[in-house]
Amino acid sequence: MHLEKIKSPADLRSLPAGALEELAGELRELVIDTVSRHGGHLGANLGTVELTIALHRVFEIPEDRLLFDVGHQAYVHKILTGRAGEFAASLRQFGGCSGFPAGWESRFDVGAAGHAGTAISTALGISAVMMREGSSRRAIAVVGDGSLNNGISLEGLNNARRDGRNLIVVLNDNKMSISENVGGLANCLNRIISGGFYNRTKAAAKRLLLSLPRHEKIHRVIRRFEDVLKSLILPGVVFEELGFRYIGPINGHSLPDLLRTFERVKGFEGPVLVHVLTEKGRGCEFARLEPERYHGVSGFDRESGEIPVNNGPTFSKAFGAAMLKLAAAHREVTAVSAAMLGGTGLNGFADAHPGRCYDVGIAEEHAVAFSAGLAAAGMRPVCAVYATFMQRALDCVYHDVVLPRFPVIFALDRAGAVEDGPTHHGIYDLGFLRAMPGLTVMAPRNERELDAMLEFAYVLASPVVIRYPRGGSGDDSACPVPPLEPGRAEVVVDGDGPVLWAMGAETGTALAVAALLRQRCGVDCTVINARFLAPFDAELARRRAQGRLSVSMEDHVLSGGLATALSEALEDTPHGGMLHFGWPADQVIPHGGVADLRRAFGLTPEAIAAKIADRLSAPREHTT
Amino acid sequence: MHLEKIKSPADLRSLPAGALEELAGELRELVIDTVSRHGGHLGANLGTVELTIALHRVFEIPEDRLLFDVGHQAYVHKILTGRAGEFAASLRQFGGCSGFPAGWESRFDVGAAGHAGTAISTALGISAVMMREGSSRRAIAVVGDGSLNNGISLEGLNNARRDGRNLIVVLNDNKMSISENVGGLANCLNRIISGGFYNRTKAAAKRLLLSLPRHEKIHRVIRRFEDVLKSLILPGVVFEELGFRYIGPINGHSLPDLLRTFERVKGFEGPVLVHVLTEKGRGCEFARLEPERYHGVSGFDRESGEIPVNNGPTFSKAFGAAMLKLAAAHREVTAVSAAMLGGTGLNGFADAHPGRCYDVGIAEEHAVAFSAGLAAAGMRPVCAVYATFMQRALDCVYHDVVLPRFPVIFALDRAGAVEDGPTHHGIYDLGFLRAMPGLTVMAPRNERELDAMLEFAYVLASPVVIRYPRGGSGDDSACPVPPLEPGRAEVVVDGDGPVLWAMGAETGTALAVAALLRQRCGVDCTVINARFLAPFDAELARRRAQGRLSVSMEDHVLSGGLATALSEALEDTPHGGMLHFGWPADQVIPHGGVADLRRAFGLTPEAIAAKIADRLSAPREHTT
Repeated sequence: MHLEKIKSPADLRSLPAGALEELAGELRELVIDTVSRHGGHLGANLGTVELTIALHRVFEIPEDRLLFDVGHQAYVHKILTGRAGEFAASLRQFGGCSGFPAGWESRFDVGAAGHAGTAISTALGISAVMMREGSSRRAIAVVGDGSLNNGISLEGLNNARRDGRNLIVVLNDNKMSISENVGGLANCLNRIISGGFYNRTKAAAKRLLLSLPRHEKIHRVIRRFEDVLKSLILPGVVFEELGFRYIGPINGHSLPDLLRTFERVKGFEGPVLVHVLTEKGRGCEFARLEPERYHGVSGFDRESGEIPVNNGPTFSKAFGAAMLKLAAAHREVTAVSAAMLGGTGLNGFADAHPGRCYDVGIAEEHAVAFSAGLAAAGMRPVCAVYATFMQRALDCVYHDVVLPRFPVIFALDRAGAVEDGPTHHGIYDLGFLRAMPGLTVMAPRNERELDAMLEFAYVLASPVVIRYPRGGSGDDSACPVPPLEPGRAEVVVDGDGPVLWAMGAETGTALAVAALLRQRCGVDCTVINARFLAPFDAELARRRAQGRLSVSMEDHVLSGGLATALSEALEDTPHGGMLHFGWPADQVIPHGGVADLRRAFGLTPEAIAAKIADRLSAPREHTT
Repeated sequence: MHLEKIKSPADLRSLPAGALEELAGELRELVIDTVSRHGGHLGANLGTVELTIALHRVFEIPEDRLLFDVGHQAYVHKILTGRAGEFAASLRQFGGCSGFPAGWESRFDVGAAGHAGTAISTALGISAVMMREGSSRRAIAVVGDGSLNNGISLEGLNNARRDGRNLIVVLNDNKMSISENVGGLANCLNRIISGGFYNRTKAAAKRLLLSLPRHEKIHRVIRRFEDVLKSLILPGVVFEELGFRYIGPINGHSLPDLLRTFERVKGFEGPVLVHVLTEKGRGCEFARLEPERYHGVSGFDRESGEIPVNNGPTFSKAFGAAMLKLAAAHREVTAVSAAMLGGTGLNGFADAHPGRCYDVGIAEEHAVAFSAGLAAAGMRPVCAVYATFMQRALDCVYHDVVLPRFPVIFALDRAGAVEDGPTHHGIYDLGFLRAMPGLTVMAPRNERELDAMLEFAYVLASPVVIRYPRGGSGDDSACPVPPLEPGRAEVVVDGDGPVLWAMGAETGTALAVAALLRQRCGVDCTVINARFLAPFDAELARRRAQGRLSVSMEDHVLSGGLATALSEALEDTPHGGMLHFGWPADQVIPHGGVADLRRAFGLTPEAIAAKIADRLSAPREHTT
């Protein structure tokens, strides 16, 4: 066992070269074993074992700085930087080791990572300072081929000419970051790879040029061979045009190739782009064969690879089914996603309507502006992304959809706290979205209401956001969904006790709280499914608040969402007090199982009921 | 006069070809005359006269769709599409002709334009529908070279391969969109231009290739000539690699060249990129010689070009001066902007500290992530952009700065309503920013307080936003700025009447309102300068609210800002009622002079005082 001797990258650097292959095997074992138990990202981390070893072997992190874009491929880096024990014991567990690089967890990490595209820009900032200080250290950004398509990556590449002397971009090309490779850049990368390695390419180019005829019509020949020339002579021409020295492609699983390349690159004055080819799931047969399935898992059987399946209803599945229904009824319904077709439940839609389904890659802003174009040309686009990633495109929601009032429907999946932690919680968007003039914002209480809301949004034919959490509502009752009316909440249970306002799936929490309070205090709560966050049913809130405690429950921070809507609604009206339950806005919400997070932040039905009971037993004075 | 005959593009198309040059002259006259009177964008519109004529002559808008990225270069388009009268009479006036394309103003415009980078994506959406419908129409995006550097433009280009059959991107290259050309793409464009036109390039390439020696060392020769080959054989190689057919560069002031090119391109199956060279200020000597000065003006003397100068203090000037002071005291203070160095008052800083000043072009997200990198490497970056453009980078503020708690200071200029209209109002960001854990948000009441807040933010050494409106506070008193304390408001005047809370420069409005109320109702208001929007001084709000009316005044929408902070603070406490003054969140705030907008929305001291007086004379019941 070499691994147990490695407490820091210095230990790795003093390991004999012959031990590195074995070390790679041990790292793979540790990653597979840990992810099988705790869940996490499997394929990407198995693909970057040799790459990470080579980087830590050649460079001296943290004097050289290493950034992983998106960050879900940093497990080996975590293990090699003194976190092997925490990693094995508590990966992604509440209070344990984060699944992403986190500057607050280790001095070997830089800042936060979780959203795609920012590593090049941040590394460039570091490079600018290194240049200024005359340092020969390097700032290294490891970026996947999918992330490279993101606008921020492209802005970063485009800005590297001036400040990138100490910048190394490692393009980790596994061709799998998105369901299907899209885009011009992906196409270039494919052509580079299919053209073979650099030396072979050069030789081919030489032969080709020697064969060119020496007469006047060479002009036309050049035109004809232009494409061939481009890919043969200049494999990284796009990057070189942007000011990068292009090196590659390199076999990302050959330690000797990687070590030799990085040793060489270390001496260059950047910006340098090293194109590394890796294979997702390398060294684990089932993960290698089904890379999408094993990209992110909640755990699996160590031997068979079997993943426990959730066969229950989920919002994502319900959304997929509702989209199929809507598309069958209306030929202008189209779907747009940003590398999240599968995650948002649109795989079935993509199969059924390939011509009406657009996956634009990890480019959320483009997804929104593109949807605006579809709408401008008469389509009815439904743009489905995760709530946390929609933060990337809030300005486009305003500028390109809300202002011109294009009837784009935004379906925000994973809206709420999630296991992945602070970079991924979808709990910050409502403060901005609720301020958008004419934007309708809804949250369904269960899967059937999501279907109804999608239909409602279609009929409304103006900008709409529908947001719902990961997983299912757990509401398996079959009661029909009462018709939706613009800006009107649904009174689910009518009692004369406290008024419990719930956002979307929190209606289930509110019902549980109501049951506890009936049991414990003998009060009959009113339970209201808010349905609309904008426009909010302020009138109902005011009507019910007189002489009664109003309570809000939401899977969002306590700023800008339901709590705010309620306090705004009741600010100038007689009411019987307010209590709010949601994630605090003044602290970072960490990673961990959602049940653990709810317990830690007092958001279980028991904790909520207890607080309400306290308040009821010690009524305050200011009620009028 | 040809112009008066043109009521729609059809009239332009039926004009004899010989009349077009004269028409161009008439259009220039109209643009110069109108902008001299009403203000607006001069240089960019003079640069696109021939281009716009040629596009409307060759294509049939709106069956073909025409989008202007950013949109400040669309005056000629507006004039040629039936809006000449409105344009001349009311450009940028309240209730008049908008200075930007606006789908709600004319069927010849598509959606909204004002922020850079979205036209290619939206045009691609339209192209996707045209393809689907088998249409031979074209979706045309006119994009400046500065806009092309924006991440969304790059995402759009990168996605054009699949859906861009009907897409034409016109690259309007005037090399002036940003103070100084930055970035790899700009560098490519320069090399293309300096390499001469396509035919000349081809001839040169032919000669070069013919001169290649026929022996084994050709390998090394190729390496040596690689750069030369690239720029000579493949002028638009970056675009061609992304899947575009590259045409250009074309002289953007030669109508015959433009018409011939567009006629030819019309028949291509896209995506096509037409590279057009234009000159800002063309045909108006003073505008041509000082393109930055005449980019956007508030009016000028028709003959001399003299621009009325505001010699009074402004927040931008105060910021520039404060930055110089801060940088002199602390060597790690650096400035970052996104093509807004001049606008944010940083020209002096750029001159004094070129090595500590970064203008990254129109790439706000990169600006924020780059700032994070500077901070990670020990610098103290101050990232200065307009509030409306910061909407582009809200996710980076969260993900790259707030989460890792990097001490980046964001200086948001133009925070508030502005003449340019809905695409440019900086009034929507607080709902998101106030929900950020650990982000301090401040607004200075005057120029001197801005200086103090910058110093305070430096000492705080955590993520900070300082936001202030365009122009000056008008506060020419010399009273000292009381020391800033985290989360504490400043009681400016202490009375026993209504409590007037003001955000930043609205403190001046509040003082005027207080004076009117003293005069009119004999009440002595308390006037409070909120200073901190986050953390908000809720304790003071509660203390002062008992039995007294609390009033908020802000240059932001009535959602997510001061009004919300106040209603949240007072929601569960006895108070004497609330009144809020700000921009309504449920309607689009149009363009027009800010004084006109304030009158229209009841935000003058007189209107506010009258409403408060009404409320005081008809007190409501719910005070406790």
